[in-house]
Amino acid sequence: MMKFDLHPSGIEFFFSPRSIAVIGASANLTKLSGRPLDALLKNKYAGAIYPVNPRYTEVAGLACYPSIGDIPEPVDLAIVSVPIEGTLDALRACAAAGVKAAVVFTSGFAETGEAGRALQDRIADIARQSGLRVLGPNCLGLIYYPKTVMASFSDVMFVERKNTGKLAFITQSGAFGEKTFIQASQDGVGMSAFISVGNEADLQFTDFIAHLISNDETNLFGVYLEGAKDGVKFRRAAEAALVAGKPVLIKKVGRTAAGTRAAQSHTGSLAGNDRIYDAFFRQTGILRIDELRDLMYFAHVFQSGRMPKGRNAAILTDSGGPGVEMADRCEEFGLSVPELSEATRRAISAAIPSYGSARNPIDMTAAIMTDDALYTKCLRAIFAEDAVDIVFAPGIFMSYASPHLLDETLAIYRAFDKPLVMCPVWTDSSPESQAMVERVRKEGIPMIPEASDAARAMAALVRWTEKRKAFTAPAGRGPAVPVSAAQKAKKILQKQGALTEADSKKVLTAYGIPVTKEEPAASAAGAVAAARRIGYPVALKVLSPDIPHKTEAGGIRLNLRSDAAVRRAFAEILKSARAYAPRAAIDGVLVQEMLGPGVETIIGVTRDPVFGPAVMFGLGGILVEVIQDVSFRVAPLSRADAAEMIREVKGARLLSGVRGRTAADLKALSDVILKVSQLALDYADVIEELDINPLVVYPKGARVADALIVKK
Amino acid sequence: MMKFDLHPSGIEFFFSPRSIAVIGASANLTKLSGRPLDALLKNKYAGAIYPVNPRYTEVAGLACYPSIGDIPEPVDLAIVSVPIEGTLDALRACAAAGVKAAVVFTSGFAETGEAGRALQDRIADIARQSGLRVLGPNCLGLIYYPKTVMASFSDVMFVERKNTGKLAFITQSGAFGEKTFIQASQDGVGMSAFISVGNEADLQFTDFIAHLISNDETNLFGVYLEGAKDGVKFRRAAEAALVAGKPVLIKKVGRTAAGTRAAQSHTGSLAGNDRIYDAFFRQTGILRIDELRDLMYFAHVFQSGRMPKGRNAAILTDSGGPGVEMADRCEEFGLSVPELSEATRRAISAAIPSYGSARNPIDMTAAIMTDDALYTKCLRAIFAEDAVDIVFAPGIFMSYASPHLLDETLAIYRAFDKPLVMCPVWTDSSPESQAMVERVRKEGIPMIPEASDAARAMAALVRWTEKRKAFTAPAGRGPAVPVSAAQKAKKILQKQGALTEADSKKVLTAYGIPVTKEEPAASAAGAVAAARRIGYPVALKVLSPDIPHKTEAGGIRLNLRSDAAVRRAFAEILKSARAYAPRAAIDGVLVQEMLGPGVETIIGVTRDPVFGPAVMFGLGGILVEVIQDVSFRVAPLSRADAAEMIREVKGARLLSGVRGRTAADLKALSDVILKVSQLALDYADVIEELDINPLVVYPKGARVADALIVKK
Repeated sequence: MMKFDLHPSGIEFFFSPRSIAVIGASANLTKLSGRPLDALLKNKYAGAIYPVNPRYTEVAGLACYPSIGDIPEPVDLAIVSVPIEGTLDALRACAAAGVKAAVVFTSGFAETGEAGRALQDRIADIARQSGLRVLGPNCLGLIYYPKTVMASFSDVMFVERKNTGKLAFITQSGAFGEKTFIQASQDGVGMSAFISVGNEADLQFTDFIAHLISNDETNLFGVYLEGAKDGVKFRRAAEAALVAGKPVLIKKVGRTAAGTRAAQSHTGSLAGNDRIYDAFFRQTGILRIDELRDLMYFAHVFQSGRMPKGRNAAILTDSGGPGVEMADRCEEFGLSVPELSEATRRAISAAIPSYGSARNPIDMTAAIMTDDALYTKCLRAIFAEDAVDIVFAPGIFMSYASPHLLDETLAIYRAFDKPLVMCPVWTDSSPESQAMVERVRKEGIPMIPEASDAARAMAALVRWTEKRKAFTAPAGRGPAVPVSAAQKAKKILQKQGALTEADSKKVLTAYGIPVTKEEPAASAAGAVAAARRIGYPVALKVLSPDIPHKTEAGGIRLNLRSDAAVRRAFAEILKSARAYAPRAAIDGVLVQEMLGPGVETIIGVTRDPVFGPAVMFGLGGILVEVIQDVSFRVAPLSRADAAEMIREVKGARLLSGVRGRTAADLKALSDVILKVSQLALDYADVIEELDINPLVVYPKGARVADALIVKK
Repeated sequence: MMKFDLHPSGIEFFFSPRSIAVIGASANLTKLSGRPLDALLKNKYAGAIYPVNPRYTEVAGLACYPSIGDIPEPVDLAIVSVPIEGTLDALRACAAAGVKAAVVFTSGFAETGEAGRALQDRIADIARQSGLRVLGPNCLGLIYYPKTVMASFSDVMFVERKNTGKLAFITQSGAFGEKTFIQASQDGVGMSAFISVGNEADLQFTDFIAHLISNDETNLFGVYLEGAKDGVKFRRAAEAALVAGKPVLIKKVGRTAAGTRAAQSHTGSLAGNDRIYDAFFRQTGILRIDELRDLMYFAHVFQSGRMPKGRNAAILTDSGGPGVEMADRCEEFGLSVPELSEATRRAISAAIPSYGSARNPIDMTAAIMTDDALYTKCLRAIFAEDAVDIVFAPGIFMSYASPHLLDETLAIYRAFDKPLVMCPVWTDSSPESQAMVERVRKEGIPMIPEASDAARAMAALVRWTEKRKAFTAPAGRGPAVPVSAAQKAKKILQKQGALTEADSKKVLTAYGIPVTKEEPAASAAGAVAAARRIGYPVALKVLSPDIPHKTEAGGIRLNLRSDAAVRRAFAEILKSARAYAPRAAIDGVLVQEMLGPGVETIIGVTRDPVFGPAVMFGLGGILVEVIQDVSFRVAPLSRADAAEMIREVKGARLLSGVRGRTAADLKALSDVILKVSQLALDYADVIEELDINPLVVYPKGARVADALIVKK
């Protein structure tokens, strides 16, 4: 496993500053530059607070200083709320005064165009040169509840905090962040930190994830993302969070062409290739969410502290319809609804009316309205059942329900360690009912009204748990790449000009990737000799660095079975290649072994501007060409990544031997994928594109039939 | 267009009864059989109310009768709330007393097994013989607000009705229905009718849709569906609703294997093949919803009364993030986010700050917090823009907003007829803010907090509008089926025993579907003669009603190019067929023209237990076999249906000429689909399965290469 560099970086001063200065503090506390002071005072921030403004000597009962340099004590965190003209000076003064961290609210930087971007680069320079860490500009700032750091001007600082909680929410959009905050507050999800990162001149969202991984007050991350600037940092932070057991949920916008266009015109951030983001998320255990509500429900389920041991869910209902609905949803999101054991079914049958159902989903029928004990008998039986990892049961909090019902329910819950989600939730407005809901909330049992939301949240937790387990398990060994591989490949890659198919295959061969037997031949006689060495049948392909598209040039002849056929093909190829590209340097032909039939696959490498080299996999022919049935992973790949990306394509069944075929050699296939990943990474600066099409996979082994590497 | 039979059927007595009897009325109004009385009295039902119970002479201040026959006046509607033992007698008494309609709450019928089903069949018998219409049994009953008919025992009758509205909700699950009712009430969606259909012994959910299509108080249907009993009725009701302009939204459960299993064990209703349901919904303009909330949001958007003229949406935002999100969602659900005209962009640019965006999505930036007029300037420009059909704009209802802002916004809204959705919605808890929200609600402008919900609802409305337009437009002409088709086909289909490929193709030929040239031959000499008439190359296939799988029997030889080859093939085929199936009656071989290459497609017919014959379409080979890339439509199909089902498969691009090919003849393809639909319908009682594989589609024309019809 990788080691992570989590040394102090100055970021800690945002989260435990001993003192905070507000530069540009307004005496009017309702104004943008008065709000941080107001919030710090109202929330009783424990450290020293220093307003800075040459126009006042006192603000809100605090001594006010003309400049940051005039403050007699050291300042850990500065809030910079000055017009754009004064921003750089304020930051320079902070750096000079030994301030450790600064939040810059001010807008008008990179989001406005070239001039603004230049100004923003100056902020980055100041940060780099002085060690002052900067959040922003163009942000709402940061709130950290455990130390009541209110370094923001957002209204959300004044929202009554009903729930403490361990969710850190980090957002690239201020407006979206506030919306999330309000929803979280309504849904009873408490935050430890709220961080609006704005333009990320210095610190990026990934820096905050990396920092808070070791923060005891944070166990879950929510991120609103338009685009990441640094894929390597992102990966390091995501993997560290996975190892630490702190899930990262990301709402990434710019999924569609319209959204990406809008995102690019918005913050100028790199929305990038959404499919690569998606692959990266799967690879690093990041849970991608579509809706804010998904974050809220996941938080409830995760914060219960109970981890599912598997995917098997039991569904308890008081009515058929909701049972069917929940079974549908479980299956849709990847949970299973297993049959229960004979013994459990018998125990349930004894409790429920004859017209109920003792099979999963268990239908207690409306009889529970008159017989409370029915519920707890069934619940106990399900919890005790070995085949069940997860329990969904309705929350019945009605004034007519006996208070004893809830006592008993909680006793059962405590006697086991399986997760329980109460869904649906029946309440009335009576105080008895509300008191019951409160007890369940205190116990930490999630209550989710809709089946889809409950199943989606639980399925996400299962997926994350499995991913974490796989990621932290001793890694499956990658294939052995020859020690001399990089060295050998280097020589070929350093050649002037474009690589030919033969060159490209030599690079692959250096990395231990099996390719067709082949030899170059400059004459017809040489081609015949080569064909005899390789063995008939053979193929002939034109050999020219200037003709990348050999088919179009009439430069390919397949299935040649005799000396005469080879001689004829040689002449034809040279003739049509010369006609197609009169100025091309033609080195002759490549004489190549004809491969027998197998499953044709495609492996490619593209360079993503954020994540660097990414490996693509697909099945040859129609599935790739017509329905774009491909999967991606960002290099480097683990063996588990390779297996996943193979499983992920829709046509994966073709490899397991449909249509009467023997199953293809998946080990050989993933070996090639892993070697390609290694090659792409070793020469990330040289290789622009790599395309193996096809790699023919056999019941035993695999062989590259054609390949091309394009240099930058 | 079809004509719909919407004659009075007795159902009208559920919705405008002049009198209601409650059989089994309890003196305790909180009891199940007291609740209808309680609700009728509390809600001031205007007709006569007759409690029936031999134990009382008065209930709740009303004269109580010993039996239904003792009531001196005619009774239109009876609510039957008696134990299961008394149900049939009560219904017989109703029928004898000339009661027009009855609601049966009682459980214990088909949902409990065979004995219960037999009892339920008796209810159906009584209804059929007497003309008494029955809702239930095993249901929550019916509520119809315009006439305050409270023929239910559900709590929802006592929920304060804050909103009148025109949604009729019809449910096969009582519990789910109540959940929907409560959510609708919370979300401000008013219902005209709430109908829990229970076991549908007599009346089915489709009967209620059909009836309420002509009800002025209803303009929208919501249905919770586990399974339909009668596909023909369903289609008639759905098409009539579409023509009448009353959308039908259905939440259908049983989408997955687990859900279907659960649904079957639940009400014993036929969950059926979900893919056929899905096809049927598309075909009839029914909008399938996943979540209850989708029904609520659609209701808001539809009830605004403004229909989108196209798919083009303009997005107005005060922040980049939410703009990107909305653009993503529009594209995801099928709306477009077009570029605005130069003039509109200029108007917007003049109003917004330089760092905003005048391109769609339009970002006004946070400057609107200090400049209200910005919002209305942009809004007016967008509404006036020809390229825009739909407007999404934030609802800003904060105490700091000038009241003038809303006046102006409403004035703009009224000056145009385009739909507007306010999304997101910013409110604070101030009375000013709440008053603004109330004004917008009164105006009928939908306010939807989440981008996904807003875009999904609007896209559904666009889809429905387009479907309705296409459905009510003069129908594209179907292909001419020869008048003698059915007659000719009948002769072949009436033959004893299974049909051969040759027979099957003759049936297709009768319907004008082009097949390969072919002739049967009983001897090698006959085969040679036939081959010469057809023209080389030819294929030979074994001809035997007892050998459906010809390939497995070694009964096929392709690409035969000479007399000698045909003779040899004839001998070989007969030999291997005899070895494969020694008892088979072998009639010789079919000599068949070899077809040139084209796009291979598959057309099939399956019989669905609910919907009858359904036509399947797919592209030959890997797409069907490996990723089940097929589409369905229920017969009869319109030309538009055929075009849609062709477009619907993922590989559809193959037909439009990818990979350097000429586009395939889509007209010829859809002609074959339509003729197959006609054949399947004409012989719905005879044909169990039909399989054309492949139909080869050429740039001009199409030809069946192989086909098989399986009789019941």
